[in-house]
Amino acid sequence: MFESPVPHDPPIYRRIADGLRARILSGELRDGDRLPGENALMADYSIARATARQALAVLINEGLAVPKRGSGVYVRLFKPIRRHGSRRLARDQWGEGRAIWDADTRGRPFTVDEVEVLREEVPEDVADILDSREAWTRRRRYSVDGRPVQLATSYFPARAVEGSAITTADTGPGGVYARLRDLGLAPAHFTEEIRARMPAPRETELLGLPGGTPVIVIARTAYTAGGMPVEYNEMVLDSAAYVLQYDFDA
Amino acid sequence: MFESPVPHDPPIYRRIADGLRARILSGELRDGDRLPGENALMADYSIARATARQALAVLINEGLAVPKRGSGVYVRLFKPIRRHGSRRLARDQWGEGRAIWDADTRGRPFTVDEVEVLREEVPEDVADILDSREAWTRRRRYSVDGRPVQLATSYFPARAVEGSAITTADTGPGGVYARLRDLGLAPAHFTEEIRARMPAPRETELLGLPGGTPVIVIARTAYTAGGMPVEYNEMVLDSAAYVLQYDFDA
Repeated sequence: MFESPVPHDPPIYRRIADGLRARILSGELRDGDRLPGENALMADYSIARATARQALAVLINEGLAVPKRGSGVYVRLFKPIRRHGSRRLARDQWGEGRAIWDADTRGRPFTVDEVEVLREEVPEDVADILDSREAWTRRRRYSVDGRPVQLATSYFPARAVEGSAITTADTGPGGVYARLRDLGLAPAHFTEEIRARMPAPRETELLGLPGGTPVIVIARTAYTAGGMPVEYNEMVLDSAAYVLQYDFDA
Repeated sequence: MFESPVPHDPPIYRRIADGLRARILSGELRDGDRLPGENALMADYSIARATARQALAVLINEGLAVPKRGSGVYVRLFKPIRRHGSRRLARDQWGEGRAIWDADTRGRPFTVDEVEVLREEVPEDVADILDSREAWTRRRRYSVDGRPVQLATSYFPARAVEGSAITTADTGPGGVYARLRDLGLAPAHFTEEIRARMPAPRETELLGLPGGTPVIVIARTAYTAGGMPVEYNEMVLDSAAYVLQYDFDA
């Protein structure tokens, strides 16, 4: 955090949030517990409703609490998913038939739903990246510990993957990267671009995002050793559920 | 973007935002131009004020426009900074006395201000990472094209850097990494952790963030070849100003 050299007293709403956060992190308040409501905070601290709301909003924005309509604000603990940029895409992961998601979740249960697989004409920016106007597109939603955490849309150049399991719902052991390898198009290089923004309404709905939670957008392109683009994948992540990690050398 | 297989008509506020965005991206509306106000949108589309506000909020959230108090909403174009995770920290960058920031901005003018250098006791999580309770801390703000884009706080284990230029405002050619090398502590490995969240009030102020703009937080640890942690740097980025890029192999 960037702070002034002369320490200021933080504003009251922040001190209240700090206190509640400490009670959550110490385990005194637990997952699913109801936080003190606006009325209780107003009475306890002699503050206005807007200030009480601000204090609760801090914890909601930090992903430590979630509002339920008409019922209050509840502790929502969720161990962030550590997504390791390079390790998860190492060839010995998908090459041995493991799902890339196993590397992310380290044994935590994950599910995939809202799956769509279709052949379509793609937007111009995607066509430019893939060097193909037609693509096989795979959309899906990932949930971990029962919580939706990511929407992903992968595009594959249509002619390159026609007739393979990439065009069907179940892609088999090792997933799409193992199938690309079977086609002689094994991914060798990856570029990931990362942005953050507020979610679109449909993303809010599908990820069940509380107000004030941004999304992280990862746009990854996979290339063969020969430099041919074989996949463009746009992932939309609940920012409260993820830490992205990248390791590299000087 | 994640979309339903059956296309829905987007809501009216989104269609208005789409139209304005197209006019911005086509160059019809230019940097600094005033967008149609709430009253104009209400009259043109027969919509409520809340809907007009929602349409403008979409463009503000996307970093394409900025509200000015009492005056309206203006186009704010800013070519995103492409921050290349590994290339910018390559040894031949700082080893030859170049600032790492030159790699990010590719010739665009950048300035550094709000600089503070102090010796201090650090928070427990930082102490754990650096294996030192005392650190030399360097805080600063970076601006590109006159716009504040990043706050950064670097911590160095106090005993390791005592007496070096790292403890002074001007660190000389190649910056802190070249000075660590001079001390026999050249960074060899980096770990970056990336998160996104809404900004704290002080971050909003120092970065001049319009409402609804999240920040990206990068926490980087630099290690020597022997595995000694020599810097922990926490960077807070205006998400509308940045694209982070990471390249790696399968």
